Amino acid sequence: MINLASDYLEGCHPNILKKLAEVNEQQTPGYGRDPFCEEAAAEIRRVFSCPDSDVHFLVGGTQTNSVVISSILRPYEGVLCPVSGHINQHETGAIEATGHKVMGLTHKDGKITAAQVRVITALQEDDEHTVRPGMVYISLSTEYGTVYNLTELRDLYKACRSSGIYLYVDGARLGYGLSTPFTNITPADLPKYTDVFTVGGTKQGALLGEAVVINNPALKKDFRYMMKRAGAMLAKGRLIGIQFSELMKNNLYFDLAKKAVGQADRIRAALLKAGIPLLVDSPTNQLFPIFTDEQLETLEESFIFSPWERVNDSSTAVRVCTSWCTPDSHVDALIKAVKELKK
Amino acid sequence: MINLASDYLEGCHPNILKKLAEVNEQQTPGYGRDPFCEEAAAEIRRVFSCPDSDVHFLVGGTQTNSVVISSILRPYEGVLCPVSGHINQHETGAIEATGHKVMGLTHKDGKITAAQVRVITALQEDDEHTVRPGMVYISLSTEYGTVYNLTELRDLYKACRSSGIYLYVDGARLGYGLSTPFTNITPADLPKYTDVFTVGGTKQGALLGEAVVINNPALKKDFRYMMKRAGAMLAKGRLIGIQFSELMKNNLYFDLAKKAVGQADRIRAALLKAGIPLLVDSPTNQLFPIFTDEQLETLEESFIFSPWERVNDSSTAVRVCTSWCTPDSHVDALIKAVKELKK
Amino acid sequence: MINLASDYLEGCHPNILKKLAEVNEQQTPGYGRDPFCEEAAAEIRRVFSCPDSDVHFLVGGTQTNSVVISSILRPYEGVLCPVSGHINQHETGAIEATGHKVMGLTHKDGKITAAQVRVITALQEDDEHTVRPGMVYISLSTEYGTVYNLTELRDLYKACRSSGIYLYVDGARLGYGLSTPFTNITPADLPKYTDVFTVGGTKQGALLGEAVVINNPALKKDFRYMMKRAGAMLAKGRLIGIQFSELMKNNLYFDLAKKAVGQADRIRAALLKAGIPLLVDSPTNQLFPIFTDEQLETLEESFIFSPWERVNDSSTAVRVCTSWCTPDSHVDALIKAVKELKK
Amino acid sequence: MINLASDYLEGCHPNILKKLAEVNEQQTPGYGRDPFCEEAAAEIRRVFSCPDSDVHFLVGGTQTNSVVISSILRPYEGVLCPVSGHINQHETGAIEATGHKVMGLTHKDGKITAAQVRVITALQEDDEHTVRPGMVYISLSTEYGTVYNLTELRDLYKACRSSGIYLYVDGARLGYGLSTPFTNITPADLPKYTDVFTVGGTKQGALLGEAVVINNPALKKDFRYMMKRAGAMLAKGRLIGIQFSELMKNNLYFDLAKKAVGQADRIRAALLKAGIPLLVDSPTNQLFPIFTDEQLETLEESFIFSPWERVNDSSTAVRVCTSWCTPDSHVDALIKAVKELKK
Repeated sequence: MINLASDYLEGCHPNILKKLAEVNEQQTPGYGRDPFCEEAAAEIRRVFSCPDSDVHFLVGGTQTNSVVISSILRPYEGVLCPVSGHINQHETGAIEATGHKVMGLTHKDGKITAAQVRVITALQEDDEHTVRPGMVYISLSTEYGTVYNLTELRDLYKACRSSGIYLYVDGARLGYGLSTPFTNITPADLPKYTDVFTVGGTKQGALLGEAVVINNPALKKDFRYMMKRAGAMLAKGRLIGIQFSELMKNNLYFDLAKKAVGQADRIRAALLKAGIPLLVDSPTNQLFPIFTDEQLETLEESFIFSPWERVNDSSTAVRVCTSWCTPDSHVDALIKAVKELKK
Repeated sequence: MINLASDYLEGCHPNILKKLAEVNEQQTPGYGRDPFCEEAAAEIRRVFSCPDSDVHFLVGGTQTNSVVISSILRPYEGVLCPVSGHINQHETGAIEATGHKVMGLTHKDGKITAAQVRVITALQEDDEHTVRPGMVYISLSTEYGTVYNLTELRDLYKACRSSGIYLYVDGARLGYGLSTPFTNITPADLPKYTDVFTVGGTKQGALLGEAVVINNPALKKDFRYMMKRAGAMLAKGRLIGIQFSELMKNNLYFDLAKKAVGQADRIRAALLKAGIPLLVDSPTNQLFPIFTDEQLETLEESFIFSPWERVNDSSTAVRVCTSWCTPDSHVDALIKAVKELKK
Repeated sequence: MINLASDYLEGCHPNILKKLAEVNEQQTPGYGRDPFCEEAAAEIRRVFSCPDSDVHFLVGGTQTNSVVISSILRPYEGVLCPVSGHINQHETGAIEATGHKVMGLTHKDGKITAAQVRVITALQEDDEHTVRPGMVYISLSTEYGTVYNLTELRDLYKACRSSGIYLYVDGARLGYGLSTPFTNITPADLPKYTDVFTVGGTKQGALLGEAVVINNPALKKDFRYMMKRAGAMLAKGRLIGIQFSELMKNNLYFDLAKKAVGQADRIRAALLKAGIPLLVDSPTNQLFPIFTDEQLETLEESFIFSPWERVNDSSTAVRVCTSWCTPDSHVDALIKAVKELKK
Repeated sequence: MINLASDYLEGCHPNILKKLAEVNEQQTPGYGRDPFCEEAAAEIRRVFSCPDSDVHFLVGGTQTNSVVISSILRPYEGVLCPVSGHINQHETGAIEATGHKVMGLTHKDGKITAAQVRVITALQEDDEHTVRPGMVYISLSTEYGTVYNLTELRDLYKACRSSGIYLYVDGARLGYGLSTPFTNITPADLPKYTDVFTVGGTKQGALLGEAVVINNPALKKDFRYMMKRAGAMLAKGRLIGIQFSELMKNNLYFDLAKKAVGQADRIRAALLKAGIPLLVDSPTNQLFPIFTDEQLETLEESFIFSPWERVNDSSTAVRVCTSWCTPDSHVDALIKAVKELKK
């Protein structure tokens, strides 16, 4: 069976394992105070052109969202996000667990707009009987594999600024999100147009790890206290530092992402050629083809996808995911199988 | 410099790196639903003789304590523990973050007694103006490197049982705790005399990871929901499964622990021979010698210890920690230096 | 100005003030352990035919919802409710403050259906990546002044039962809700078809106070601990006990409610006669007429309403609220003013 | 039976009932936005000489402490207080319920010192593994009926200032605390030497209600959001406004307190004359005599006290409490009974 259900099914890029073995016996201080984490932070500041940002290394995505959001909001504030946002749908209430309401906005293919933010914050005024929006959460790429362009991002940031709230970009799939010609956002735009963003490791070639980049000085204070309190400070923090060092060196992170997006492009072309409709026009590593029940039954003899959404009585959208390590053979096999599908 | 400040300064046992490389490209489901985690859970059930216990793999100690404790307690209940307990002193309020009071009891070298538990639960009766104790937290070995013996553990468990509360043993250093002749507790006793216990990986040869073993059926339900909500469910859960599989095989976990305790024994003997007093009589991998300022200054030219406690105007207790990978050369160097100390 | 904006604008029924004065110097134990609270609880059990239910007295509506819901749910569970539910819209995240997600369902005039509950709980299955619904919250009457009938309530209760979740009815306006011929629910049905319900005091003739009635034995344990922890246990609890005793005696509670609903009926008739459309067909003490901007400007010279919803470019729905003490003169004045409105 | 167990056993001062009846039918806006609350706030600003402070009205003591403290602290911060502090002992974990650790300090008769605050904040430095103290909580008078003098209060405030933390004074018994010659603190000192203080109503002649006075401008923002989220904003807020207006007028609040302290003085004199030892030398309305078992058995035929602490095998300290409404007859009866006690 070839598994294309998600982008966290394998281990990590071999460079990481090599480096882990190389430095295994070196003694370093714990809790992210080691030279590897320092180097990784420096690399991230270089790659994203943000010499003054704070960089922290956390373990996983849900944990990261929870720590970042609860460090930003006052107790009575909530976080605006697309209804489809990961924090709203797939984190078992991790944000509410910290006392904050997740305020879902209607979305278009996983995206929200500056206009929506302006309207909802304008309506709120000063009414202590309702939750006050304190920040906006978006992801890049989104849950639907879509991306924002620079104008959209900048407008969201301006809308947040003028409403006195913060913008946080969840970059669990940031590499994939920036590696498509369908966005003109560059790494250097992230620190310019966000208060905080993350650089995902888990889904982009690491064993685990998310880097949090805090650009707004007002949000930097005591972030390590927030991490520790949430159980999000790894004793052997170097494990994450080493990984991000390796991934950031020589552009490996973006090379891997580009390769994955390229593999998705090949699959997309095959799907379209075969007349398979797509639920969403997603230009990154996640595709959402709609197969008939019969087609799916055939494909699932050899492939594993993520179930996504029942579209009608006889067809279903699934998620097909390429990753930093999807081999050509898997893509070729799928393309072949798609070609042979009955319509 | 030789670093003896703690037991999480190096990477991991080479077997782990070897296995990680070996299976790196295998595709497995995420979130701990992979064959490696299943194998690791089976190994733990075998080693601790608890075929019916549930086993879960979490990332770090603070996270584990927070998830376990908040899964056990009702909102108005608190957790009894020694004042010196890790949850009370070194977790930045992670337990309070879940809404629960940590109720510190006076301790003797990091340990509490069944009698204390009986008295405090008897006093509480039915008074809704005070926090009700809902469980007891102890660690094995303790923060002071001490251990409980079987009678003490059994009595604590019985006291909990008769008070209608639960007993949880934090085993971040469980291997070290069970690898000293100063306790007669065996692995098979843990599931018998606790409701939940953990098997620590981070400090005992793994890169990261703590195994939670739930023995009491009443506490098993929906633990994975608690994990996910706390951001404690690793996407590539296999990373922890692989490690515990390797550590549990062929008794590696306990062999490493025994080696560390042996190294500590050698250091202790040298300290006592040199007339250096010990703050606590700790029989595991943590030692707490009291050095004069002058002695410490000399030693700290070549060694790193953890500062622990100022004992009087001219001397300080430090923590000296051996670990699963402390080489003979480090121990020999310290013994030599101790011998040469001025009194 | 005549204020018809809400039902908590005046003090309380004179019987209450009389009784407060009468017993003012009597000494009683604190925290709801006094004879007045006992008598009030007995009266409520009698009126609602639930001799075995537990009755507790809390101060306000938001507090009551928060304590009840957090006492029922496990940490990872959420509460299903209409999107329009008070807990979702007007409590500043009080439920999320206790760590629980409020899961809004689409509603019809403030109401949800058993079918919705069945579908959402069936979909959830066993997926620890999403919040599990643990209970349903509805209000009677609803935020839109509408009511459920007995079949609807019973079906909701059965849907909850068969899904293994609980049903809680917020009765902040329970008297008004039961005092319209448009429902066939009787007081005795509440304990039969809910796990917990409340009897509102604040909006129905008391200075303050909500009674919580717990019917399901599984939910009774330690509720007073939950109250105290939330700061919801009044030191001079008798203040609430005295009020509910007075209101429950001689059917006063329902007599007052009926009077308010009668006053609303008269206003509704006048509105319909004048051709004023209603946003919702609400048969209790809350009306939602849609006035043109010109009409509203005229009326607001003499009357205060609650703004509700901008309906189109030139008209707005407002809330007109009668209460236990709305005098005929206020109603007459509004009817006259409505008659004179330009269309 | 004469009940001297506490100061919340009766209703309220008759002026309050009179006023409640007088304005009962007036219509006012809800949630503390009414003229009565405005007047009461103005009176409090006048009495305590703090024209720029914000004044809010909450319902009860536990609720007030919880809202104030959680509005001040960042998530990872804790509150320093005497081990005996009400928030640490008698609020069922209400502070922990908001995510914060209560950090108990050893106390002398319920009091802590500036030196203690200085030491603990100095030790903390920048260690993200421990809870950071963010504020100090004391009460005036204390749980032991003792008071601070002006120097002590000022020193505590300075210690807080220089450590960058806040000082909060719980004034549930503020009137009693300021009505003894054993303190030289005046009402005007409270806003000078605290960041926030409260003026207790419940124990000092009101049916319910605590006034929160926020002096530090940095702590004023959005307090009403914090109140509403905690269910601490009374719909008919005027109920509390009316009471504080009445109590603050013509010095009634302090006259009642002085009378209570005077009654306690008479009882204390009788106790000392009879050779009954006192657990604590408390100069306000709470006394803690130590009776032999035989004495207590005799007294408890006619009087109700609060049990406090078993002192030795044959004697017990109890709390004897006078209040704003303790009649001479009760005091005379107790004095007579004490005189007749066997030694």
